[in-house]
Order: sequence, then C-alpha cells, then structure tokens
Amino acid sequence: MEITATKGQIIKGKPVADQISETLIKEVNELVKEGINPKLAILRVGANGSDLAYERGALKRCESTGIQTQVVELPEDVTQEEYVKTLKGLNEDTNINGILCFRPLPKQLDEEAIKYIIAPEKDVDSFSPINSAKVMEGDKTGFPPCTPTAVVEILKHYNVALSGSKVAVLGRSMVVGKPAAMLLLNENATVTICHSRTKDLAKVTSEADVLVAAVGRAKMVKEDFVKEGAVVIDVGINVDEEGKLCGDVDTDAVLDKVSMITPVPAGVGSVTTSILAKHVVKACKLQNNK
Amino acid sequence: MEITATKGQIIKGKPVADQISETLIKEVNELVKEGINPKLAILRVGANGSDLAYERGALKRCESTGIQTQVVELPEDVTQEEYVKTLKGLNEDTNINGILCFRPLPKQLDEEAIKYIIAPEKDVDSFSPINSAKVMEGDKTGFPPCTPTAVVEILKHYNVALSGSKVAVLGRSMVVGKPAAMLLLNENATVTICHSRTKDLAKVTSEADVLVAAVGRAKMVKEDFVKEGAVVIDVGINVDEEGKLCGDVDTDAVLDKVSMITPVPAGVGSVTTSILAKHVVKACKLQNNK
Repeated sequence: MEITATKGQIIKGKPVADQISETLIKEVNELVKEGINPKLAILRVGANGSDLAYERGALKRCESTGIQTQVVELPEDVTQEEYVKTLKGLNEDTNINGILCFRPLPKQLDEEAIKYIIAPEKDVDSFSPINSAKVMEGDKTGFPPCTPTAVVEILKHYNVALSGSKVAVLGRSMVVGKPAAMLLLNENATVTICHSRTKDLAKVTSEADVLVAAVGRAKMVKEDFVKEGAVVIDVGINVDEEGKLCGDVDTDAVLDKVSMITPVPAGVGSVTTSILAKHVVKACKLQNNK
Repeated sequence: MEITATKGQIIKGKPVADQISETLIKEVNELVKEGINPKLAILRVGANGSDLAYERGALKRCESTGIQTQVVELPEDVTQEEYVKTLKGLNEDTNINGILCFRPLPKQLDEEAIKYIIAPEKDVDSFSPINSAKVMEGDKTGFPPCTPTAVVEILKHYNVALSGSKVAVLGRSMVVGKPAAMLLLNENATVTICHSRTKDLAKVTSEADVLVAAVGRAKMVKEDFVKEGAVVIDVGINVDEEGKLCGDVDTDAVLDKVSMITPVPAGVGSVTTSILAKHVVKACKLQNNK
C-alpha cells in the first residue's frame, strides 16, 4: 500500500508494531507446531523504574506473540562473579534463544568485560561487540540495537524512499546514532552524521530528506533544522519544562513544514519491543537452522 | 608547526611516514632496552604480486624501525584446517605481537570463520570483528585498518582542522570507507558517507571541507566534485587508460581548485606500512602492560 504523504502527517509507531506482531504470531505458531518454543530471558539488576517500564512492555509484547519469557532479577549489589555466572547460565540454557541485559550496569560491574561474555547469537539488543561489528559490516545474521532498527522499520512501513536519499542522523551514540547511520547506509541512503560539534547544524540537517534526531535534548530541533517536506523520526525521550514527555524535535514548530513526523510518546518507542520480539524469533530460527 | 595551505599543494605521504618512523624507533629502542622485542608475523597464502609488493614494504619498514618479522607462506591450496592451525600457532606464540593475514583468502578457505580466530590483541590490520566494533565505538585500544588510519594521520600531520568540519567519505567498504567515517567522526568531523547510489554526488562531495575518495574508480573525482579550497585525500590505486598508476581523483583537473591533495602513488600508500609498524608497537606495549 502506497501511503500518500500529506503535510504534517503524524506517523505513529503502533501500526508498525502491529504489523510486525502479526507476522511474528504466524512465525511463532509455525515453530511451536514443530515443538520449538522461542524464549527470551531478561537479566535485570535491581528494579529501577525505567527498566521495569520497558520490561512490562517487552513481556506484554512477547506474551501477545507467543514468545516465552523468563526474568532474572539480581540484587543491586550483585558481584561481577555472580552476574557473569548468571549470564553464562543463560548462554548455556538451550531453552533460551534471546537474552536482554538491562544497561547501564551498576558501577561495581565491569560492563566492558561482560559485553564479551553474552553469547552473540542470543544477544538480541546488540550488547556484544560481535553484533556491533555485524551492524557495521551490514551482516544480516547479526542483531542491531532495537531502537535504530525500529527507526528503519518505521521508515519502511510508511514507504519512505531511502535509496539515494539524503539522511541526517543527529547524534552519534552506540545505542542509536552510529548504528542508525550504518543501517541507513545499508539501505543505500547518503548518510550524514551530525553531533554537538557540527558547525551550522541547522543548515546541515535542513538539507536532509530524512532527519533522525537522537541527541536527548528536549525540543532542540526547530523549524530551521528541517527541510520543506522532510520526514522526521524523533528518537528522543525527554521531559519538557512543564514536566511532559517530549522528543528531541519541537513538533509543533516543524509540523507544517515536514511531510511526516513520529510523535513522542507513541512513536519510535512503541516499536522497540516489537523489534526485540522479532530478534528473539530470528535468534530462535538461526539456532534451529530454520 | 603550522603549515600554510597554499593552492594546489601536493601533500606527500613520505614526511608523515618518516615522522611516524622517528617516533617508533625511539619507542622500540626503549622496549628493547627492557628486553622486549616487538615482532610482526605475516601470514601469506601463495605468492601473488600485490601481496609480495606490500610485504616488501612492510618488512623494510619494520627493519628500519627495529621491529622483528617472520613471514609464513602457505601453499595456494592450503586447507582450512592447516590455515587455522598456523594462525592459532601465531596467536599462541608469545614472541609475536602482531599478525597480518593477507586477504582476500583463496576460495577454499572460510574467511568468515577465520576472522573470529585471529587474536584481536594481535590483529594489527582489523581482520577481527572485535576490532571493527572498537573502531565503531571509538575504543582506542583497538586496531583500525591501516589505510583509513593513514588517512587520519596525514590530515593531522598537515594540520587540517577536523573538529566541526564537513568531511565527505566517498566509498563504503569495510577496508576504507566505513572505518574512515568512524575515525573521522571520532575527530569530531561532521561526516557524510557517499557511494554509488548517492544522488547528485558531485554536489554532495563539493560541499565538503575534506574529501576522502576511496571507491577504486580511476580519476572519477573531477573539478565539480570538489569545493574551492578543499583538502582531498585520494585513497584509490587504479591504472589509467595509458597503463599508469592513478588515484580516484583526476588530480590535474582539481589541482587549481583544492588547497591540498595527496598524490597517487606516493600519497596514502606510503603511510600504511608505517601504521602497520605503529600498530605492532602498540600491540607489543599493550601485551606487556606498557
């Protein structure tokens, strides 16, 4: 279905998530028929609010698509030895196909060491350097981080042309900016990576057909940052001066100028757990040579 | 020393290589005094001309900086088992600090498997995915590929401002384009990655303060591809219609427009073996906790 890009169209994440879920339900059904039960393990230290909120969403998504789950909670003061032992247990457990480790880890844990321990083939949110390398190589057997993958899925769902088009990625984190740039490059976009040191930032981003904002600064993308008719994907989740959730883009200010823009909330964030579930099924299939 | 950028300055690789060598000689001397002898192993299959040419350059560079070397030549029809056994032997040999595996490997060898076998801490030319991931992360303990590292060294040697400047990388290979983009991003440049699918390519590259050409197409970068006063790094090594070596840039056509440009030959290619030697010394130091 070709979607006509009218001016200022708010493109929500839910239809994208729903479509992914629909496909996953069928795939999981097929696997279950063959006696294979895709399963995600979540490894969480302590119980902070944002981890718990994401976990609830992930568990709900898995349940609705037929993916089994197991949550392992470790105490806030867990030792490196205990964390590693638990993670290795999940690596070795053949019933588990995907592992999500909540990060950042508390200070007593050596994240730099732990990222080498998670089994790359179960690493559904790109904690392992092997998966970072695969993102850069464009190796489809890997697992890119869920958020930038959600960005690409949204763009594809709404039929945004990527091949040959100019994409600006604002932000260069390992969680969003850099992998988003690599994934969009794999879609044959001409990608510019902008950041805090970029000179004439608004001029640079306003030349892009597609702008992906992932800097974590409330409403910093104003009208002069966007090209007439551009598609804007707002990855930021911030709190504005009134205490309300908002993105990196000043949506009201750009709405009349852009062709499409994702809202915050109900945009990119609504798709990430679908990508997580999709990665669990992909991992399960790869592990079972499907 | 500030170098004044006059118009059309040809910037050669040799002064950069010489400066790196000078530093390395001192570093190697210090190590040798402590009884530590940095050593590079080269693993080569068969004896094709371009491998041998690069090998001669590498051996000469190592010799002149005091780095020991060992060349292992395997027959053209070597089996996977034999290659892996040899590579593992080099991994385990504590006298060897750096390993260079010539690639591409012959068809009977599974390069995708072998790249996971080379010890990342000895992998001085970024064969291992661990080093690809470190390039993307900006982790300074890793070993980026020698060629894009040479590009950055040349730019720094000639005092080209990178922070905040617009850099266009033409080409997206894992050997040059993508790692060059990541290394330049780490220098706080605003990086655009262009390629065969880029629309209005000349327009995009002509907006860059620095253009890195790495596509492998003889003289494809013409006058309209470059900005007035731009710095151009020509990574290509091609043969023109007269059978002469040339780069990706039509040097004669752009010379009056650019501020600086590397020649081909005698440009980037003259610096890569210095980077290789530098990586061997770095690997040696890391392995000895120096």
